[in-house]
Amino acid sequence: MDTHAPATPFTRLRRYGDRGLHDFESIAAILDAAPICHVGHIIDGRPVVLPTLHWRIEDTVYFHGSAASRMLETGAECEVCLTASLIDGYVLARSGFNHSVNYRSALVFGRPRAVLDAAEKERVLGRFIDGLFPGRWARLRPPTTQEMKATLVLGLPITEASAKVRSGPPHDDDGDLTWPVWAGTVPLRVATGTPEPDAGLDPSLEPPLPPRIG
Amino acid sequence: MDTHAPATPFTRLRRYGDRGLHDFESIAAILDAAPICHVGHIIDGRPVVLPTLHWRIEDTVYFHGSAASRMLETGAECEVCLTASLIDGYVLARSGFNHSVNYRSALVFGRPRAVLDAAEKERVLGRFIDGLFPGRWARLRPPTTQEMKATLVLGLPITEASAKVRSGPPHDDDGDLTWPVWAGTVPLRVATGTPEPDAGLDPSLEPPLPPRIG
Repeated sequence: MDTHAPATPFTRLRRYGDRGLHDFESIAAILDAAPICHVGHIIDGRPVVLPTLHWRIEDTVYFHGSAASRMLETGAECEVCLTASLIDGYVLARSGFNHSVNYRSALVFGRPRAVLDAAEKERVLGRFIDGLFPGRWARLRPPTTQEMKATLVLGLPITEASAKVRSGPPHDDDGDLTWPVWAGTVPLRVATGTPEPDAGLDPSLEPPLPPRIG
Repeated sequence: MDTHAPATPFTRLRRYGDRGLHDFESIAAILDAAPICHVGHIIDGRPVVLPTLHWRIEDTVYFHGSAASRMLETGAECEVCLTASLIDGYVLARSGFNHSVNYRSALVFGRPRAVLDAAEKERVLGRFIDGLFPGRWARLRPPTTQEMKATLVLGLPITEASAKVRSGPPHDDDGDLTWPVWAGTVPLRVATGTPEPDAGLDPSLEPPLPPRIG
Protein backbone atom coordinates (compact mmCIF):
# COMPACT_ATOMS: atom_id res chain seq x y z
CA MET A 1 0.00 0.00 0.00
CA ASP A 2 1.76 3.15 -1.11
CA THR A 3 -1.17 5.55 -1.05
CA HIS A 4 -0.67 8.41 1.31
CA ALA A 5 -2.99 11.08 2.50
CA PRO A 6 -1.13 14.35 2.16
CA ALA A 7 -1.75 17.15 4.62
CA THR A 8 -3.73 19.80 2.77
CA PRO A 9 -4.38 23.21 4.31
CA PHE A 10 -7.70 21.73 5.31
CA THR A 11 -6.37 18.73 7.18
CA ARG A 12 -3.30 20.39 8.64
CA LEU A 13 -4.13 20.76 12.28
CA ARG A 14 -3.86 24.12 13.82
CA ARG A 15 -3.64 23.10 17.44
CA TYR A 16 -1.74 20.29 19.12
CA GLY A 17 0.39 19.79 16.02
CA ASP A 18 2.27 17.05 17.81
CA ARG A 19 -0.89 14.98 17.99
CA GLY A 20 -1.60 15.18 14.26
CA LEU A 21 -0.70 12.27 11.98
CA HIS A 22 -1.03 12.32 8.24
CA ASP A 23 0.38 8.99 7.11
CA PHE A 24 -1.98 6.54 5.54
CA GLU A 25 -1.19 3.65 7.90
CA SER A 26 -2.13 5.68 10.98
CA ILE A 27 -5.39 6.79 9.42
CA ALA A 28 -6.24 3.29 8.19
CA ALA A 29 -5.55 1.76 11.61
CA ILE A 30 -8.01 4.11 13.30
CA LEU A 31 -10.69 3.54 10.65
CA ASP A 32 -10.25 -0.21 11.11
CA ALA A 33 -10.45 -0.04 14.90
CA ALA A 34 -13.50 2.21 15.25
CA PRO A 35 -16.84 0.37 15.28
CA ILE A 36 -18.80 3.37 13.99
CA CYS A 37 -18.14 6.64 12.27
CA HIS A 38 -19.96 9.95 12.02
CA VAL A 39 -20.59 11.39 8.58
CA GLY A 40 -21.11 15.12 8.26
CA HIS A 41 -22.69 16.69 5.22
CA ILE A 42 -24.59 19.85 4.42
CA ILE A 43 -28.36 19.88 3.90
CA ASP A 44 -30.04 23.17 3.05
CA GLY A 45 -26.92 25.00 4.19
CA ARG A 46 -26.87 23.34 7.60
CA PRO A 47 -24.47 20.72 8.92
CA VAL A 48 -25.94 17.29 9.64
CA VAL A 49 -23.94 14.56 11.38
CA LEU A 50 -25.21 10.99 11.27
CA PRO A 51 -23.69 7.86 12.78
CA THR A 52 -23.18 4.85 10.58
CA LEU A 53 -21.03 1.78 10.19
CA HIS A 54 -18.03 1.97 7.92
CA TRP A 55 -15.40 -0.39 6.63
CA ARG A 56 -12.20 0.00 4.70
CA ILE A 57 -10.97 -1.81 1.62
CA GLU A 58 -7.47 -0.69 0.67
CA ASP A 59 -7.58 3.08 0.17
CA THR A 60 -11.36 3.52 0.25
CA VAL A 61 -13.65 3.80 3.25
CA TYR A 62 -17.21 2.59 2.62
CA PHE A 63 -20.40 3.31 4.51
CA HIS A 64 -24.07 2.67 4.06
CA GLY A 65 -27.32 2.90 5.98
CA SER A 66 -29.43 5.93 6.61
CA ALA A 67 -26.49 8.32 6.30
CA ALA A 68 -25.87 7.09 2.77
CA SER A 69 -29.54 7.15 1.84
CA ARG A 70 -30.11 10.62 3.21
CA MET A 71 -27.09 11.83 1.32
CA LEU A 72 -28.22 10.24 -1.89
CA GLU A 73 -31.66 11.75 -1.45
CA THR A 74 -30.20 15.19 -1.07
CA GLY A 75 -27.67 14.94 -3.85
CA ALA A 76 -25.24 12.17 -4.57
CA GLU A 77 -21.54 12.85 -4.39
CA CYS A 78 -21.87 15.83 -2.09
CA GLU A 79 -18.97 16.77 0.09
CA VAL A 80 -18.63 14.89 3.38
CA CYS A 81 -16.40 14.64 6.40
CA LEU A 82 -16.25 11.09 7.75
CA THR A 83 -14.88 11.00 11.28
CA ALA A 84 -14.10 7.81 13.19
CA SER A 85 -13.13 8.18 16.85
CA LEU A 86 -12.28 5.96 19.77
CA ILE A 87 -12.05 7.24 23.32
CA ASP A 88 -9.34 5.31 25.15
CA GLY A 89 -9.53 6.92 28.55
CA TYR A 90 -10.02 9.91 30.77
CA VAL A 91 -6.83 11.70 31.76
CA LEU A 92 -7.14 13.10 35.26
CA ALA A 93 -4.67 15.82 36.15
CA ARG A 94 -4.23 17.82 39.36
CA SER A 95 -5.83 20.90 37.77
CA GLY A 96 -9.01 21.05 35.75
CA PHE A 97 -7.16 22.76 32.94
CA ASN A 98 -4.79 19.84 32.40
CA HIS A 99 -7.52 17.21 32.26
CA SER A 100 -7.67 15.52 28.91
CA VAL A 101 -8.77 12.39 27.11
CA ASN A 102 -6.83 9.67 25.40
CA TYR A 103 -8.33 9.08 22.00
CA ARG A 104 -7.75 8.18 18.39
CA SER A 105 -9.58 10.04 15.67
CA ALA A 106 -9.42 9.97 11.87
CA LEU A 107 -11.05 12.45 9.49
CA VAL A 108 -11.57 11.76 5.81
CA PHE A 109 -12.81 14.53 3.52
CA GLY A 110 -14.18 14.25 0.03
CA ARG A 111 -17.03 13.34 -2.28
CA PRO A 112 -18.11 9.73 -1.89
CA ARG A 113 -19.06 7.72 -4.92
CA ALA A 114 -22.12 5.50 -4.95
CA VAL A 115 -21.26 1.88 -5.68
CA LEU A 116 -23.72 1.00 -8.44
CA ASP A 117 -22.25 -2.04 -10.14
CA ALA A 118 -24.04 -5.07 -8.69
CA ALA A 119 -21.00 -7.35 -8.61
CA GLU A 120 -18.82 -4.68 -7.02
CA LYS A 121 -21.51 -3.87 -4.48
CA GLU A 122 -21.84 -7.51 -3.50
CA ARG A 123 -18.08 -7.88 -3.13
CA VAL A 124 -17.86 -4.71 -1.03
CA LEU A 125 -20.76 -5.74 1.22
CA GLY A 126 -19.24 -9.20 1.62
CA ARG A 127 -16.02 -7.61 2.82
CA PHE A 128 -18.04 -5.56 5.31
CA ILE A 129 -19.74 -8.59 6.89
CA ASP A 130 -16.66 -10.80 6.73
CA GLY A 131 -14.49 -8.03 8.17
CA LEU A 132 -16.55 -8.22 11.36
CA PHE A 133 -17.49 -11.91 11.25
CA PRO A 134 -15.04 -13.87 9.07
CA GLY A 135 -16.68 -16.33 6.70
CA ARG A 136 -20.22 -15.22 7.48
CA TRP A 137 -21.15 -13.75 4.10
CA ALA A 138 -20.99 -17.12 2.29
CA ARG A 139 -23.22 -18.73 4.91
CA LEU A 140 -26.03 -16.15 4.66
CA ARG A 141 -29.18 -16.52 2.60
CA PRO A 142 -27.92 -14.97 -0.68
CA PRO A 143 -29.09 -11.44 -1.50
CA THR A 144 -31.89 -10.95 -3.99
CA THR A 145 -31.63 -8.52 -6.89
CA GLN A 146 -34.25 -6.39 -5.15
CA GLU A 147 -32.27 -6.25 -1.93
CA MET A 148 -29.08 -5.33 -3.72
CA LYS A 149 -30.87 -2.49 -5.49
CA ALA A 150 -32.28 -1.25 -2.19
CA THR A 151 -28.87 -1.25 -0.50
CA LEU A 152 -26.96 1.99 -0.83
CA VAL A 153 -23.20 1.84 -0.47
CA LEU A 154 -20.93 4.85 -0.73
CA GLY A 155 -17.16 4.73 -1.11
CA LEU A 156 -14.94 7.61 -0.07
CA PRO A 157 -11.30 7.60 -1.22
CA ILE A 158 -8.84 8.17 1.60
CA THR A 159 -6.91 10.94 -0.10
CA GLU A 160 -7.55 14.05 1.98
CA ALA A 161 -7.40 12.81 5.54
CA SER A 162 -5.78 13.24 8.91
CA ALA A 163 -5.61 11.60 12.29
CA LYS A 164 -5.10 12.72 15.84
CA VAL A 165 -4.00 10.62 18.76
CA ARG A 166 -3.50 11.39 22.45
CA SER A 167 -2.18 8.74 24.77
CA GLY A 168 -0.36 8.42 28.04
CA PRO A 169 -0.49 10.02 31.48
CA PRO A 170 -1.55 13.55 32.44
CA HIS A 171 0.80 16.45 31.86
CA ASP A 172 0.62 18.52 35.00
CA ASP A 173 2.34 21.78 35.75
CA ASP A 174 5.49 21.09 37.77
CA GLY A 175 4.14 23.04 40.71
CA ASP A 176 1.02 20.87 40.84
CA LEU A 177 2.66 17.47 41.13
CA THR A 178 2.28 17.22 44.88
CA TRP A 179 -1.30 18.53 44.96
CA PRO A 180 -3.22 15.98 47.08
CA VAL A 181 -5.67 14.61 44.52
CA TRP A 182 -5.63 11.32 42.62
CA ALA A 183 -4.15 11.70 39.13
CA GLY A 184 -3.70 9.25 36.31
CA THR A 185 -5.82 7.69 33.60
CA VAL A 186 -9.14 5.84 33.67
CA PRO A 187 -9.11 3.51 30.64
CA LEU A 188 -12.14 3.09 28.42
CA ARG A 189 -12.63 0.55 25.69
CA VAL A 190 -15.31 -1.02 23.53
CA ALA A 191 -16.20 -4.40 25.02
CA THR A 192 -18.09 -7.17 23.27
CA GLY A 193 -20.54 -9.25 25.24
CA THR A 194 -21.72 -12.84 24.92
CA PRO A 195 -23.68 -13.40 21.69
CA GLU A 196 -27.44 -13.65 22.34
CA PRO A 197 -29.09 -16.15 19.99
CA ASP A 198 -32.36 -15.26 18.32
CA ALA A 199 -35.44 -16.93 19.82
CA GLY A 200 -35.93 -20.39 18.39
CA LEU A 201 -32.45 -20.61 16.86
CA ASP A 202 -31.12 -24.14 16.28
CA PRO A 203 -28.74 -24.48 19.26
CA SER A 204 -26.27 -26.48 17.17
CA LEU A 205 -25.45 -23.36 15.15
CA GLU A 206 -22.12 -21.96 16.26
CA PRO A 207 -22.12 -18.34 17.54
CA PRO A 208 -19.63 -15.95 15.92
CA LEU A 209 -16.35 -14.97 17.47
CA PRO A 210 -16.40 -11.43 18.87
CA PRO A 211 -15.32 -8.93 16.20
CA ARG A 212 -11.88 -7.39 16.49
CA ILE A 213 -12.62 -3.75 17.11
CA GLY A 214 -11.47 -1.07 19.51
CA MET B 1 -38.11 19.75 33.40
CA ASP B 2 -40.79 20.72 30.96
CA THR B 3 -38.65 21.70 28.01
CA HIS B 4 -39.33 19.64 24.96
CA ALA B 5 -37.61 19.41 21.64
CA PRO B 6 -40.29 19.64 18.99
CA ALA B 7 -39.89 17.80 15.71
CA THR B 8 -39.12 20.38 13.09
CA PRO B 9 -39.07 19.49 9.40
CA PHE B 10 -35.32 19.24 9.85
CA THR B 11 -35.39 16.74 12.68
CA ARG B 12 -38.38 14.72 11.55
CA LEU B 13 -36.85 11.52 10.35
CA ARG B 14 -37.62 10.37 6.91
CA ARG B 15 -36.79 6.74 7.29
CA TYR B 16 -37.48 4.30 10.11
CA GLY B 17 -40.04 6.62 11.59
CA ASP B 18 -40.69 4.10 14.33
CA ARG B 19 -37.12 4.52 15.55
CA GLY B 20 -37.37 8.27 15.88
CA LEU B 21 -37.94 9.88 19.26
CA HIS B 22 -38.51 13.54 19.83
CA ASP B 23 -39.21 13.86 23.53
CA PHE B 24 -36.71 15.69 25.65
CA GLU B 25 -36.17 12.88 28.15
CA SER B 26 -35.12 10.41 25.45
CA ILE B 27 -32.69 12.90 23.96
CA ALA B 28 -31.26 13.87 27.35
CA ALA B 29 -30.76 10.23 28.35
CA ILE B 30 -28.68 9.54 25.24
CA LEU B 31 -26.61 12.71 25.69
CA ASP B 32 -25.95 11.70 29.29
CA ALA B 33 -24.96 8.14 28.39
CA ALA B 34 -22.60 8.86 25.49
CA PRO B 35 -18.97 9.48 26.52
CA ILE B 36 -18.18 11.58 23.45
CA CYS B 37 -20.02 13.46 20.76
CA HIS B 38 -19.22 14.58 17.24
CA VAL B 39 -19.77 18.21 16.34
CA GLY B 40 -20.32 19.10 12.71
CA HIS B 41 -19.94 22.61 11.40
CA ILE B 42 -19.15 24.26 8.11
CA ILE B 43 -15.74 25.73 7.32
CA ASP B 44 -15.19 27.38 3.94
CA GLY B 45 -18.35 25.70 2.68
CA ARG B 46 -17.22 22.21 3.66
CA PRO B 47 -18.50 20.02 6.49
CA VAL B 48 -16.06 19.29 9.31
CA VAL B 49 -16.84 16.78 12.06
CA LEU B 50 -14.73 16.78 15.20
CA PRO B 51 -15.02 14.57 18.27
CA THR B 52 -15.21 16.17 21.66
CA LEU B 53 -16.52 15.62 25.17
CA HIS B 54 -19.91 17.03 26.04
CA TRP B 55 -22.04 17.30 29.11
CA ARG B 56 -25.59 18.36 29.81
CA ILE B 57 -26.97 20.78 32.37
CA GLU B 58 -30.75 20.91 32.23
CA ASP B 59 -31.72 21.87 28.69
CA THR B 60 -28.27 22.83 27.42
CA VAL B 61 -25.51 20.60 26.10
CA TYR B 62 -22.01 21.97 26.58
CA PHE B 63 -18.79 21.08 24.84
CA HIS B 64 -15.26 22.38 24.73
CA GLY B 65 -11.83 21.43 23.48
CA SER B 66 -10.52 21.70 19.96
CA ALA B 67 -13.98 21.52 18.38
CA ALA B 68 -15.02 24.59 20.32
CA SER B 69 -11.79 26.43 19.63
CA ARG B 70 -11.86 25.69 15.91
CA MET B 71 -15.44 26.89 15.78
CA LEU B 72 -14.63 30.06 17.65
CA GLU B 73 -11.70 30.71 15.34
CA THR B 74 -13.89 30.40 12.29
CA GLY B 75 -16.81 32.38 13.60
CA ALA B 76 -18.54 32.08 16.95
CA GLU B 77 -22.15 31.06 17.06
CA CYS B 78 -22.11 29.30 13.73
CA GLU B 79 -24.61 26.57 13.07
CA VAL B 80 -23.69 23.11 14.35
CA CYS B 81 -25.05 19.61 14.55
CA LEU B 82 -23.95 17.85 17.74
CA THR B 83 -24.44 14.10 17.49
CA ALA B 84 -23.93 11.67 20.38
CA SER B 85 -24.13 7.98 19.56
CA LEU B 86 -23.71 4.67 21.34
CA ILE B 87 -23.47 1.38 19.53
CA ASP B 88 -25.13 -1.30 21.66
CA GLY B 89 -24.61 -4.34 19.47
CA TYR B 90 -24.43 -5.98 16.09
CA VAL B 91 -27.69 -7.53 14.89
CA LEU B 92 -26.99 -10.64 12.86
CA ALA B 93 -29.82 -11.81 10.63
CA ARG B 94 -30.02 -14.77 8.22
CA SER B 95 -29.69 -12.43 5.22
CA GLY B 96 -27.17 -9.68 4.72
CA PHE B 97 -29.97 -7.25 4.01
CA ASN B 98 -31.57 -7.71 7.42
CA HIS B 99 -28.36 -7.19 9.36
CA SER B 100 -28.52 -4.11 11.56
CA VAL B 101 -27.08 -2.49 14.63
CA ASN B 102 -28.57 -1.69 17.97
CA TYR B 103 -27.74 1.88 18.82
CA ARG B 104 -28.85 5.09 20.47
CA SER B 105 -28.21 8.40 18.78
CA ALA B 106 -29.18 11.99 19.57
CA LEU B 107 -28.82 14.98 17.26
CA VAL B 108 -28.96 18.57 18.49
CA PHE B 109 -29.03 21.41 15.96
CA GLY B 110 -28.45 25.09 16.55
CA ARG B 111 -26.07 27.92 17.22
CA PRO B 112 -24.01 27.40 20.35
CA ARG B 113 -23.28 30.29 22.62
CA ALA B 114 -19.81 30.86 24.08
CA VAL B 115 -19.85 30.90 27.88
CA LEU B 116 -17.93 34.06 28.67
CA ASP B 117 -18.90 34.94 32.23
CA ALA B 118 -16.09 33.65 34.47
CA ALA B 119 -18.36 32.52 37.30
CA GLU B 120 -20.75 30.75 34.95
CA LYS B 121 -17.87 29.12 33.11
CA GLU B 122 -16.39 27.82 36.35
CA ARG B 123 -19.75 26.45 37.47
CA VAL B 124 -20.32 24.76 34.10
CA LEU B 125 -16.83 23.23 34.05
CA GLY B 126 -17.28 22.03 37.60
CA ARG B 127 -20.44 20.24 36.59
CA PHE B 128 -18.52 18.61 33.73
CA ILE B 129 -15.79 17.19 35.97
CA ASP B 130 -18.17 16.27 38.78
CA GLY B 131 -20.58 14.64 36.36
CA LEU B 132 -17.90 12.10 35.52
CA PHE B 133 -16.07 12.02 38.86
CA PRO B 134 -18.36 13.23 41.66
CA GLY B 135 -16.71 15.63 44.09
CA ARG B 136 -13.50 15.93 42.09
CA TRP B 137 -13.75 19.61 41.12
CA ALA B 138 -13.44 20.87 44.69
CA ARG B 139 -10.34 18.75 45.26
CA LEU B 140 -8.40 20.04 42.22
CA ARG B 141 -5.83 22.78 42.25
CA PRO B 142 -8.11 25.78 41.65
CA PRO B 143 -8.11 27.30 38.16
CA THR B 144 -6.17 30.47 37.51
CA THR B 145 -7.68 33.48 35.77
CA GLN B 146 -5.38 32.75 32.82
CA GLU B 147 -6.58 29.16 32.56
CA MET B 148 -10.21 30.16 32.69
CA LYS B 149 -9.66 32.66 29.90
CA ALA B 150 -7.92 30.02 27.79
CA THR B 151 -10.74 27.52 28.26
CA LEU B 152 -13.45 27.74 25.63
CA VAL B 153 -16.87 26.39 26.53
CA LEU B 154 -19.84 26.43 24.21
CA GLY B 155 -23.43 25.79 25.24
CA LEU B 156 -26.04 24.57 22.77
CA PRO B 157 -29.71 24.72 23.79
CA ILE B 158 -31.54 21.45 23.28
CA THR B 159 -34.44 22.91 21.36
CA GLU B 160 -34.21 21.46 17.87
CA ALA B 161 -33.21 17.87 18.46
CA SER B 162 -34.11 14.27 17.79
CA ALA B 163 -33.09 10.79 18.79
CA LYS B 164 -33.07 7.39 17.18
CA VAL B 165 -32.92 4.04 18.91
CA ARG B 166 -32.77 0.49 17.62
CA SER B 167 -32.83 -2.41 20.04
CA GLY B 168 -33.76 -6.05 20.15
CA PRO B 169 -33.28 -9.12 17.98
CA PRO B 170 -32.98 -9.33 14.18
CA HIS B 171 -36.07 -9.03 12.00
CA ASP B 172 -35.74 -11.77 9.42
CA ASP B 173 -38.04 -12.52 6.53
CA ASP B 174 -40.37 -15.36 7.53
CA GLY B 175 -38.95 -17.60 4.84
CA ASP B 176 -35.42 -17.16 6.19
CA LEU B 177 -36.03 -18.27 9.77
CA THR B 178 -34.75 -21.80 9.25
CA TRP B 179 -31.74 -20.79 7.17
CA PRO B 180 -28.79 -22.61 8.83
CA VAL B 181 -26.71 -19.72 10.06
CA TRP B 182 -26.31 -18.31 13.56
CA ALA B 183 -28.56 -15.29 14.15
CA GLY B 184 -28.98 -12.99 17.11
CA THR B 185 -27.17 -10.05 18.63
CA VAL B 186 -23.57 -9.46 19.65
CA PRO B 187 -23.67 -6.86 22.44
CA LEU B 188 -21.20 -4.00 22.58
CA ARG B 189 -20.66 -1.56 25.40
CA VAL B 190 -18.23 1.01 26.70
CA ALA B 191 -16.17 -0.60 29.47
CA THR B 192 -14.09 1.23 32.03
CA GLY B 193 -10.80 -0.28 33.14
CA THR B 194 -8.84 -0.08 36.36
CA PRO B 195 -7.56 3.45 37.04
CA GLU B 196 -3.82 3.76 36.33
CA PRO B 197 -2.15 6.15 38.79
CA ASP B 198 0.33 8.69 37.51
CA ALA B 199 3.99 7.87 38.15
CA GLY B 200 5.01 8.94 41.64
CA LEU B 201 1.48 9.47 42.91
CA ASP B 202 1.02 9.26 46.66
CA PRO B 203 -0.48 5.75 46.99
CA SER B 204 -2.74 6.87 49.84
CA LEU B 205 -4.79 8.97 47.39
CA GLU B 206 -8.04 7.22 46.58
CA PRO B 207 -8.69 6.41 42.87
CA PRO B 208 -12.00 7.62 41.43
CA LEU B 209 -14.99 5.38 40.93
CA PRO B 210 -15.54 4.49 37.26
CA PRO B 211 -17.78 7.07 35.59
CA ARG B 212 -21.36 6.09 34.83
CA ILE B 213 -21.45 6.12 31.06
CA GLY B 214 -22.72 3.83 28.33
